[in-house]
Amino acid sequence: MESLRFVLPQSEIPTHWYNVVADMPNPPLPPLGPDGKPATPEQMGAIFPMAILEQEMSAERWIPIPREVREIYRLWRPSPLVRAARLEAMLGTPAKIYYKNEGVSPAGSHKPNTAVPQAYYNKQAGIKRITTETGAGQWGCSMALAGQMFGIDVRVFMVKVSYQQKPYRRSMMQTWGAEVFASPSEMTQTGRDVLARDPGNMGSLGLAISEAVEEAASRADTNYALGSVLNHVALHQTIIGLEARKQFEMAGDWPDVVFAPCGGGSSFAGMAFPFLADNAGGGRSGRMVRLVAVEPTSCPSLTKGKYAYDFGDSSGFTPLMKMFTLGHDFMPPGIHAGGLRYHGASPLVSQLYHEGLIEAVAVPQLATFEAGVMFARAEGVVPAPESCHAIRAAVDEALRCKQDGEPRTILFNLTGHGHFDMASYDRYFAGELEDFEYPEEAIQESLRHLPDFA
Amino acid sequence: MESLRFVLPQSEIPTHWYNVVADMPNPPLPPLGPDGKPATPEQMGAIFPMAILEQEMSAERWIPIPREVREIYRLWRPSPLVRAARLEAMLGTPAKIYYKNEGVSPAGSHKPNTAVPQAYYNKQAGIKRITTETGAGQWGCSMALAGQMFGIDVRVFMVKVSYQQKPYRRSMMQTWGAEVFASPSEMTQTGRDVLARDPGNMGSLGLAISEAVEEAASRADTNYALGSVLNHVALHQTIIGLEARKQFEMAGDWPDVVFAPCGGGSSFAGMAFPFLADNAGGGRSGRMVRLVAVEPTSCPSLTKGKYAYDFGDSSGFTPLMKMFTLGHDFMPPGIHAGGLRYHGASPLVSQLYHEGLIEAVAVPQLATFEAGVMFARAEGVVPAPESCHAIRAAVDEALRCKQDGEPRTILFNLTGHGHFDMASYDRYFAGELEDFEYPEEAIQESLRHLPDFA
Repeated sequence: MESLRFVLPQSEIPTHWYNVVADMPNPPLPPLGPDGKPATPEQMGAIFPMAILEQEMSAERWIPIPREVREIYRLWRPSPLVRAARLEAMLGTPAKIYYKNEGVSPAGSHKPNTAVPQAYYNKQAGIKRITTETGAGQWGCSMALAGQMFGIDVRVFMVKVSYQQKPYRRSMMQTWGAEVFASPSEMTQTGRDVLARDPGNMGSLGLAISEAVEEAASRADTNYALGSVLNHVALHQTIIGLEARKQFEMAGDWPDVVFAPCGGGSSFAGMAFPFLADNAGGGRSGRMVRLVAVEPTSCPSLTKGKYAYDFGDSSGFTPLMKMFTLGHDFMPPGIHAGGLRYHGASPLVSQLYHEGLIEAVAVPQLATFEAGVMFARAEGVVPAPESCHAIRAAVDEALRCKQDGEPRTILFNLTGHGHFDMASYDRYFAGELEDFEYPEEAIQESLRHLPDFA
Repeated sequence: MESLRFVLPQSEIPTHWYNVVADMPNPPLPPLGPDGKPATPEQMGAIFPMAILEQEMSAERWIPIPREVREIYRLWRPSPLVRAARLEAMLGTPAKIYYKNEGVSPAGSHKPNTAVPQAYYNKQAGIKRITTETGAGQWGCSMALAGQMFGIDVRVFMVKVSYQQKPYRRSMMQTWGAEVFASPSEMTQTGRDVLARDPGNMGSLGLAISEAVEEAASRADTNYALGSVLNHVALHQTIIGLEARKQFEMAGDWPDVVFAPCGGGSSFAGMAFPFLADNAGGGRSGRMVRLVAVEPTSCPSLTKGKYAYDFGDSSGFTPLMKMFTLGHDFMPPGIHAGGLRYHGASPLVSQLYHEGLIEAVAVPQLATFEAGVMFARAEGVVPAPESCHAIRAAVDEALRCKQDGEPRTILFNLTGHGHFDMASYDRYFAGELEDFEYPEEAIQESLRHLPDFA
């Protein structure tokens, strides 16, 4: 009986993260302060530990993973690479389809890959508490888990509407010992101001970020952690692709094309960058790997946005980053892949896309759920709505292979399970979901609000 | 860095299940019909395929696992054996603690281990549809998954109160293509009779069983499937312990004591029976393994029940089985480990307990959640409330080891994850849960309703 799961021994957990900056044709553009001048490490030091800032700025190709971090990774890593043989048969495709299952982490997604080192470096720096924000709760759970592992307190500002309507990820954060506050809260000036003006305010991710950053900036023993977008986050996630490369060697195969969902960009970066290293060297045995970021048509930052300096948050508190953006006040419709509702994309992913080293595609919501259900029926695993985007693109590629008669090897990143997203599946089955195609004029309108020097 | 996860290659998925009957000192007592005479295979053939009935009656030590079943097991098996090193450190115990993580199956528990072969044998027998019942949904999900894998329709009668209050496992069953009906339903005579008398009836597991059996018995193309208690279910679950034995060899260790939660008994049987085979041969290198079933104090069938013939269901429709029972109309309090709320225990488990070859212990609800939270904080994984029972017993044993200074090796069965049980954790954190100790008189009262010849 053929093996369908390629599981590395724990001794093969990578010892270094891969930093794509070392292989980029041009150095990354720096973040800018509100004055338009490059933001300094000192400015960012109020909320991040120096070790993280060094990684954020580093051009070293290989960054060592601390032993303590690898010891925690050991709780669920290496994650399996799985051949989706039943999905192939269901599609009748000559393609080979593989997926990397990041849903096996205790928090249920790839997010702990960066939450764990972030907790570790903050602990090393003598920090007692980390603040962060969360929407539906994926990132908050990962940070809660990571904080618990290193004995560091975690305060999560959770968008109030999710806090009330999606209590189960909140319970999970509490199980791991985190404090969870509905945002806007009475804990911060930002929250109090909003509540004074609008007591019934149900919150937003931008507001929750503001609360978390305010608390971190105002306390010496408290730092802030972000779950996507930034360079150090992309760096930590490269453990996904690094493992996948080894697993393909085990399988005696190699991908022709790689798909990963792309919101802020960390799961795409994590899977794709290590293969980009091969491409930079002329490809493995001359074989170049296509690397495709998959975003929702409702929030198409790479495929329809502008490459420009913009704020990372919706309120304009963060430094400006050069990235593909729909405008920081772009408000994507309430699709169910909450993790992909971000107006921009990681500066590293953006620059690589701008330079033509990676590709991007946008897929509509209904087609993603259709692919997710197909995948669940073939392979068992019920995927997160974010992951369904990568599945859709992989299925489309497999169907093209069927048409072409080309047996290409497809890899996608199954970023998480859908156990906390069953209400979205319910709405899909009930025919209550829609596709959103954002009108060009609306995008142009929000792009008019970019900072002057963008 | 030491390996904490022992993952067998897929080529090591066992090729045979282990049938404990071959090593029992006395043959199992047969099920009896309503007339007190042994039930015949012909009587049971109306709802079970012959291949399953043969397994139910078999005394062969090794039963081959069909290739098609192993191909589906491959989607998640072998499940990992994990050394809980962080839990050991948290407890400060010299004990070594291992757990077998059955929560990695797509349905989130050990239940697909038997759902998959049951779907397979029914498909082989030309059956088009399987009916079954489910409470909170664990078993229904597993049967839905298994049916999808073999292209066999699945109808699940779900206790109405769960159908309404716990919609997410229902959504999961639908994602895998099953039809789910709130029970009592209009689909069966039993359901219609109940609704005619009591339109607001919220259902019970006994009633849902009756509906599922009625539908299976009345259609030639439809059979019924049960997720615990019976011999063939225990047989299929032995894949857990068989893998664990190989993994202990990988780890260069061997358990002194094994704990598994015990409701109907299938997860205990699955983990314990293969080690009982070693004990029957005088122990591995003379080392006998203690095998301990862990049940809730609120439903203490082994520790406080009577070894007698009783019905398997609460309504008295099934054949009579010789088992430890609290009486078939015993109504356990609404604890959160729904999978352990069963009045009896598997006849095989019961007989082995009666003969002194295995042990049993009862643990109170609050202590199980306390242990579950401790486990989640140490190891990451949030366990199902049923699994928390085994964790509690393992933690207590590890604390005894600390007291004795004895470095015993402990193994427990982590039967499932708690992703669909967060409401129970919420109630635990809110201080809303209680311990239940069933009064002796109440047990004596329900035992008075045993059939005359019991």
